[in-house]
Amino acid sequence: MPRVIKHPEIRREDILDHAQALFLTQGYDRASLNDVIASAGISKGAFYHYFPSKEALLEALADRFARQALAAVQSVLDDPDLDPLGRLNSLLSQSRQAKIETAAEAWALFETMFRPENLVLFHRINLAAHASFSPLLVKVIRQGVEDGTFRTFDPEGVADIVMQFGLATHDVVAKAIAGGSDADMEVAIEVLEKRVRLYEIALDRILGLPDGSIRIGEPGYIRAVMTARRKADKAR
Amino acid sequence: MPRVIKHPEIRREDILDHAQALFLTQGYDRASLNDVIASAGISKGAFYHYFPSKEALLEALADRFARQALAAVQSVLDDPDLDPLGRLNSLLSQSRQAKIETAAEAWALFETMFRPENLVLFHRINLAAHASFSPLLVKVIRQGVEDGTFRTFDPEGVADIVMQFGLATHDVVAKAIAGGSDADMEVAIEVLEKRVRLYEIALDRILGLPDGSIRIGEPGYIRAVMTARRKADKAR
Repeated sequence: MPRVIKHPEIRREDILDHAQALFLTQGYDRASLNDVIASAGISKGAFYHYFPSKEALLEALADRFARQALAAVQSVLDDPDLDPLGRLNSLLSQSRQAKIETAAEAWALFETMFRPENLVLFHRINLAAHASFSPLLVKVIRQGVEDGTFRTFDPEGVADIVMQFGLATHDVVAKAIAGGSDADMEVAIEVLEKRVRLYEIALDRILGLPDGSIRIGEPGYIRAVMTARRKADKAR
Repeated sequence: MPRVIKHPEIRREDILDHAQALFLTQGYDRASLNDVIASAGISKGAFYHYFPSKEALLEALADRFARQALAAVQSVLDDPDLDPLGRLNSLLSQSRQAKIETAAEAWALFETMFRPENLVLFHRINLAAHASFSPLLVKVIRQGVEDGTFRTFDPEGVADIVMQFGLATHDVVAKAIAGGSDADMEVAIEVLEKRVRLYEIALDRILGLPDGSIRIGEPGYIRAVMTARRKADKAR
């Protein structure tokens, strides 16, 4: 069989596609690096040229997910019909929409991040997601400060708090996954739904807005994302 | 030499004292488990009966620090002359005072937690500290909600946000330590001081208080804690 010469960037994406397909059908933990290498039809040496480890594959997949989600929300930033609060709410709501749509896939790929032994990986992947999403948030908050809608002296700091709200739920999710039963998941959903309501009001107040201005999750959002995990699991 | 029989709890505290003394003079990373065992004058087997690893020693020391700090703030909770806001501010200010007083020791013992490879340890130690400090915070916030001073439906959630504020500074501190220079530390101090001002106003607003009600750090607090690290380093 003649060796196929591909452009490095195409080759890299190609490996990621094969890895993603394998992780989706077998789960990240069960699929081995050798499976990925065999499926991509490349040599071990070629694989390691692109990715030093299985974790690096997962990080690259997370990065690709984040970039796709960013592209989807970009239009909100440029919509002239939205005021700063409308823009912030659209940004958050489109992120949620993307999260619901990709939830089953995301669980199959990234559930492993919530295992205790993968905390460092979770942190690293979140830092990267943070680094790409945060500037959008800062931009929108800053616009709101400039036109007097939002009242804060530190848009970057507020954006960090918003990102931190997401990180803070790690332990609740990790516990539900470690427990593994439907009842454990129900407990987590209840805790997270209450937490979302708190974060909404917290963010309203941090930005000097009336309670009820910002939507971090509509009813059913948490349940849709969390129960997608079991569906992802049963589909395998 | 006759073998000294000690009560297990005393023996355990004794090992911790020797470990702490060694870590303070040599630093946690440089002191070996064998040094600790030799200093405590016990057998390896006896040591491992109490602590499975060097990390477990550090966790136990952190736990001892946390318990001492808790004992110091306990009086605030029972002070009948304080209203809920005064109580919350006293709780936070006494925690800061304890932190300043023990800063040089704490750096010598726990700086290693901020190294990237010790993120799991950092998380574990913080979960434990969180578990002991958080109930006090919840109690004080709940008192304030009951008498109408604070306005929130979720005292546990607000306490979590306060603890999260502390965790959120991990990456800034870790970066300063990785950099290592005085200039890196100055950058971190500036970021952290701004962050403390944001967290103060954020917490005011989350609790429905006027801006400027809650003190998370007075001027000079961050600098005192952060520069104690260099002093600890130079003393060795």
